[in-house]
Amino acid sequence: MAGTSPSYSFTMRIKAVNKPGMIGDITSLIGDAGGDIGGIDIVRAGKGDVVRDYTIDTADVNHSQKIAKAVDALDGAEIVSISDRTFLIHLGGKISVENKVPLKTRDDLSMAYTPGVARVCTAIAEDKSKAYKLTIKGNTVAIVTDGTAVLGLGNIGPEASAPVMEGKAMLFKKFAGINAFPLCLNTTDVDEIVNTVKNIAPIFGGINLEDISAPRCFEIERRLSEDIDIPVFHDDQHGTAIVVLAGILNALKVVKKNLADTRIVICGTGAAGTACSMLLTSAGARNIIAVDSFGILFEGRKERMNSAKEMLAKQTNPSREEGGLAEAMKGADILIGVSAPDIVSEDMIKSMAPDSIVFALSNPVPEVNPAMALPHVRIMATGRSDYSNQVNNVLCFPGFFKGLLQCQSRTITLRMKVKAAEAIAEVIKEEELSEDYIIPSVFDERVADKVAAAVMDEAYKAGVARRA
Amino acid sequence: MAGTSPSYSFTMRIKAVNKPGMIGDITSLIGDAGGDIGGIDIVRAGKGDVVRDYTIDTADVNHSQKIAKAVDALDGAEIVSISDRTFLIHLGGKISVENKVPLKTRDDLSMAYTPGVARVCTAIAEDKSKAYKLTIKGNTVAIVTDGTAVLGLGNIGPEASAPVMEGKAMLFKKFAGINAFPLCLNTTDVDEIVNTVKNIAPIFGGINLEDISAPRCFEIERRLSEDIDIPVFHDDQHGTAIVVLAGILNALKVVKKNLADTRIVICGTGAAGTACSMLLTSAGARNIIAVDSFGILFEGRKERMNSAKEMLAKQTNPSREEGGLAEAMKGADILIGVSAPDIVSEDMIKSMAPDSIVFALSNPVPEVNPAMALPHVRIMATGRSDYSNQVNNVLCFPGFFKGLLQCQSRTITLRMKVKAAEAIAEVIKEEELSEDYIIPSVFDERVADKVAAAVMDEAYKAGVARRA
Repeated sequence: MAGTSPSYSFTMRIKAVNKPGMIGDITSLIGDAGGDIGGIDIVRAGKGDVVRDYTIDTADVNHSQKIAKAVDALDGAEIVSISDRTFLIHLGGKISVENKVPLKTRDDLSMAYTPGVARVCTAIAEDKSKAYKLTIKGNTVAIVTDGTAVLGLGNIGPEASAPVMEGKAMLFKKFAGINAFPLCLNTTDVDEIVNTVKNIAPIFGGINLEDISAPRCFEIERRLSEDIDIPVFHDDQHGTAIVVLAGILNALKVVKKNLADTRIVICGTGAAGTACSMLLTSAGARNIIAVDSFGILFEGRKERMNSAKEMLAKQTNPSREEGGLAEAMKGADILIGVSAPDIVSEDMIKSMAPDSIVFALSNPVPEVNPAMALPHVRIMATGRSDYSNQVNNVLCFPGFFKGLLQCQSRTITLRMKVKAAEAIAEVIKEEELSEDYIIPSVFDERVADKVAAAVMDEAYKAGVARRA
Repeated sequence: MAGTSPSYSFTMRIKAVNKPGMIGDITSLIGDAGGDIGGIDIVRAGKGDVVRDYTIDTADVNHSQKIAKAVDALDGAEIVSISDRTFLIHLGGKISVENKVPLKTRDDLSMAYTPGVARVCTAIAEDKSKAYKLTIKGNTVAIVTDGTAVLGLGNIGPEASAPVMEGKAMLFKKFAGINAFPLCLNTTDVDEIVNTVKNIAPIFGGINLEDISAPRCFEIERRLSEDIDIPVFHDDQHGTAIVVLAGILNALKVVKKNLADTRIVICGTGAAGTACSMLLTSAGARNIIAVDSFGILFEGRKERMNSAKEMLAKQTNPSREEGGLAEAMKGADILIGVSAPDIVSEDMIKSMAPDSIVFALSNPVPEVNPAMALPHVRIMATGRSDYSNQVNNVLCFPGFFKGLLQCQSRTITLRMKVKAAEAIAEVIKEEELSEDYIIPSVFDERVADKVAAAVMDEAYKAGVARRA
């Protein structure tokens, strides 16, 4: 069945009469019901009965229940239990804090803890910069959220956001070897968030802000960047913008257009849309039209504005166009969608310039159905893993922070972001580039180190690296 | 040499002429200079030369330099480098954040992160209590400090306190399997600390306050305990008090006295002294005399008081005695020193009641030299590992938090502390008790689980356990 997914994978424990053909009957039944069997493991064999675990990808929870019901109705078979594999891997959380040195003997204790530790404390008290070498600071990042803009789920609060933050911490470890710890804040007040992050900063080498809703995210990041001496990075803004720029740079090579001469429509003026606009401008784009749910953003617009949108209106739309998304898209070379599912029509896509590029990044449901759009566009990218050209922040943030930490950077510069995007783009050689391959795979192991090197290089050039 | 310690252990890399007897010459020289050789490892053998690593316990940094100088002066030997082993084990920090589930394939990603994680988030958003099972919350503690009262070092600030907090995190893992993460705060303001801890609480199942100076620590703990729905434990107060009570309970069995009838002098009215007084009172003590650097604390004293001391004065000193430490100690059955090095004289010790019990816990230098005191007292305990009866908080906090987390306790009760002390005391059977064995070894693996069981039992009795 099209549409089954490992994120809806269930393990069904089935007790069945031990007779020839029984497994075949069960697997046929599951297959007929649309389930995709990944594996069968025997649990125990009794007198006449055998218990087996069937691991089955389904389309959703209802689908899994339908399959279970069908199995239960089969003569000689019985569902013992159903385990949701996604929930199983979340039991007890997905990360742990572990000891790096042994603590087996009194001698170990006397070096790692009292009394030996006092000398290490004294060394740092005399020279605070030694914290980077003698504590976890040099390789540790806080993932800070208030749970207000989590995935497509919105404001679900700090507790419910934790599984995403733990997943993010896993990605930091997996792709860059960085210790990341999730801090899910019990406040949505800007001052409180800023103060809290300032207060917890000393043990961390960097702060990754995550899933904080716009426009608060802009002020929080700006104030923290001014107030603390470690880098602060709002991934939903800059991570997305960097990977988008990387993809656009490569897409433009394929279609042989210049960034400066393209008309770019950015649909969505939240965290990601605002950051994409700023970064594309820094990289040389001169004709960006930002569109929100009210319509095209222009200087002087009165409806549904805030300070972030006013700044965005100033930076974009040089000829002060007005109208809706349909008007904006006429003749556009590039559409970057960072907004909501299914808001772009086939006609809008058709109205774009030849060799059009569409990044429809709303996830899991893009701004335009890729199957509908593909016949009319030259290059298509989404946030999904089941189409080519997946725009995924994991291509950026692990390597970006690795570079920041390795040189003990005090801050993040705009140039670092441009250079990081170029580094991601350059992972794909010119001769490898094609309509279906403008962005490296998330599992491409070259990406993180290239990004880290680019960021570090820029940090030294800008004089913001602490490490000599 | 008496006084060498593994916390002053150095690895000296020595290049020496390859001739018979050379190793003997070097080891003799090191031994004569007072160094204690723990091991010799060959690094490389060249033409005529051999390079070896000598691991040597010394008395202090000066001593290690003296030894190195002596080796350098030896004909045919040369110091290549000296590494301080205590600093070596601190390089890069002592803890790390690790992934508990694999992240190798796209399927792994789609369950641990998007899109699968969204279902787990939704489940928690619908029922916040599920955070205990589906995130790290159920087994994770924050170690919170402001770096104002670290070991004997005092106010060294958040960065310099980190090695102690990382060491503490290691102890949580080692003795109770708990994830503990250090948060070293860049503020000493009570309101700021309280707000910050309230804000970061959602991802944690408990808060361990650490090395925060008195009297601020009292207010911080009280306000947090009222404001947040996870347990808050200031280890310097309660951890110390619980282990002290455990030791006192066993010591009284040995000397056959009743807690209610003993005269107890508590020297020191900071975090530990105040908590010891409260917990001993809860356990039945009726005649406690608290003494600070100004003298005996009594109700109505005007000099050097604060709100914490006023409360302490009310709870103690029933006959309103006045005077100094010498007056307090006359006829005392128990002295508990939680103050400063070498402030108790031999005469004071001699003035105590027969079968006296002395807990001199200032560390590393106790209130009274044990060698001087021992002839005059029946039972002596210190904070040091090189005497019998070591009072060490690690006997309490890992098991205490394990119990709290396992039942998802909302708070901490006084009864839990008394029960935890009794659990520690009862690890030693009556027939095993002696003057030299009233407190279990820090490596006694039975302790943490017994403490956890006692705490959990009390949590259910008090109705503060969330877990059904």
